[in-house]
Amino acid sequence: MKHLPSRGKKQTMKVIRSIKAMSGFSSEAAAGRKIGFVPTMGALHAGHVSLIRKARRDNDAVVVSVFINPLQFGPSEDFRRYPRDHASDAGICRAEGVDVLFCPSAQEMYGPGFRTFVEVKGMSDVLCGRSRPGHFRGVATVVLKLFNIVSPRTAYFGAKDAQQAAVIKRMTADLNLPVRIEVLPIVRGPGGIALSSRNAYLGDNQKEQALCLFRSLREAARLVEAGERRSSRIKESMRRIISGCPQAETDYIEIVDPRTMKTLKSIGGGKCLVALAVRVGGIRLIDNVTLDVK
Amino acid sequence: MKHLPSRGKKQTMKVIRSIKAMSGFSSEAAAGRKIGFVPTMGALHAGHVSLIRKARRDNDAVVVSVFINPLQFGPSEDFRRYPRDHASDAGICRAEGVDVLFCPSAQEMYGPGFRTFVEVKGMSDVLCGRSRPGHFRGVATVVLKLFNIVSPRTAYFGAKDAQQAAVIKRMTADLNLPVRIEVLPIVRGPGGIALSSRNAYLGDNQKEQALCLFRSLREAARLVEAGERRSSRIKESMRRIISGCPQAETDYIEIVDPRTMKTLKSIGGGKCLVALAVRVGGIRLIDNVTLDVK
Repeated sequence: MKHLPSRGKKQTMKVIRSIKAMSGFSSEAAAGRKIGFVPTMGALHAGHVSLIRKARRDNDAVVVSVFINPLQFGPSEDFRRYPRDHASDAGICRAEGVDVLFCPSAQEMYGPGFRTFVEVKGMSDVLCGRSRPGHFRGVATVVLKLFNIVSPRTAYFGAKDAQQAAVIKRMTADLNLPVRIEVLPIVRGPGGIALSSRNAYLGDNQKEQALCLFRSLREAARLVEAGERRSSRIKESMRRIISGCPQAETDYIEIVDPRTMKTLKSIGGGKCLVALAVRVGGIRLIDNVTLDVK
Repeated sequence: MKHLPSRGKKQTMKVIRSIKAMSGFSSEAAAGRKIGFVPTMGALHAGHVSLIRKARRDNDAVVVSVFINPLQFGPSEDFRRYPRDHASDAGICRAEGVDVLFCPSAQEMYGPGFRTFVEVKGMSDVLCGRSRPGHFRGVATVVLKLFNIVSPRTAYFGAKDAQQAAVIKRMTADLNLPVRIEVLPIVRGPGGIALSSRNAYLGDNQKEQALCLFRSLREAARLVEAGERRSSRIKESMRRIISGCPQAETDYIEIVDPRTMKTLKSIGGGKCLVALAVRVGGIRLIDNVTLDVK
């Protein structure tokens, strides 16, 4: 147990790069101690920090993984240029009292002969899955692998990736994984922009335009508050706001059941997820809000 | 730890039917004690018993599951008539010193909204997978679920289902499962027939005819021993033996790499798996032999 600091006590953070060393740490730590796990693709921002802090508060040990998972990027997507900054990520983790920063290599994660994939059918081919075929298969597969390596009691995900969170919750239940999934609220920057590692791609003017995502969600909430229940009307108003931005191009605007991702034609009688993806100057951004409509 | 008998000590076997109770047993047992696991579809025979005995020898606790997995049967297959005999299975397990007989229900294993599947690509659509589409997806998915529920240190499988064993080994490696896979030799009855729960379907005359599977494998071994290296010639001789049996109809005869299930046109330089499936009076039987050819 010597690697595990007691709660709040400062100790050197370990950076682990091999799968074997990581699962070795976890099996030592597992004897009655709770591991909180925050899987990330790095380029850590305040959204990730909110997950790390919650993990720190509620567990004996905190593991953060940084792994830019090739399996969840399409051939024409931004895998190569995705922001990478190990020094900054390590600094943030150290400051937040993380016990282990786990940075496996793609070579080890997907060794020779790798051919096993997890599919969450019917939830993976809508919304983001429609424009990113194979994306959620890649997400589910890597998250399952990381769970098996890290053995967390609880894993923490951000609500910005609402579909990802729903897919992972479904997989966890369906496969009887001994892991609790916690989804924490979106952290927003000035003007309401949802924090995202991909915001780093945006120029100043584009950042301004990117605020249209949050504005359209606020408009959706306002309409629902005013009594509107027809999804088509809400989406129409949102689309109008997006079209007002010359550099913005809507990928999708959907209103769905937040657990199943099934389209809702009208809302009411429970929670609904209003989600959208918009390209701003070619950069694909996503955002969402969950509304609880009685 | 009170549920766990020390090695060899007789104690009452528990029959567990709920997933929660099973994982509860395992998390109590897990603290440093080794669980050996034998997943089965019941109708236990001497082949299963060989797995249970090995599990008993090498572990602190032995769990046998009996679950006739609907997900691995095709729509026109024998799911409904598959042999079921709980009393006999329980008697065998009790006599072999099994600690837990786990018999979950299909309702609980595949609850409402279930939609997550594991696919081992490229190994699941050849041999048995060609005539049983979706079969290995069903096998991989249920085995992963059972591993997560039972938390074994080691799981035991029979070599008769060679492709199943290869698929499970691949899945275990690819998904970083903390489980060792052990594959034990085929147990054979009089005349060399491979023991199988499906042999119960055979009449006396069909049982006689079913010996052609083993006879053809013995012929393959003889030919290889005599220097034959061409798969086509070996398969031809095997096919001739099968055709000699009026009630037997070949589904496939293949010679493959035992790890990848890739077809080998010629053999030599390592292990090869000679595998076949034959319908005898409509009952689909499988058998195989692994040859190590320098």
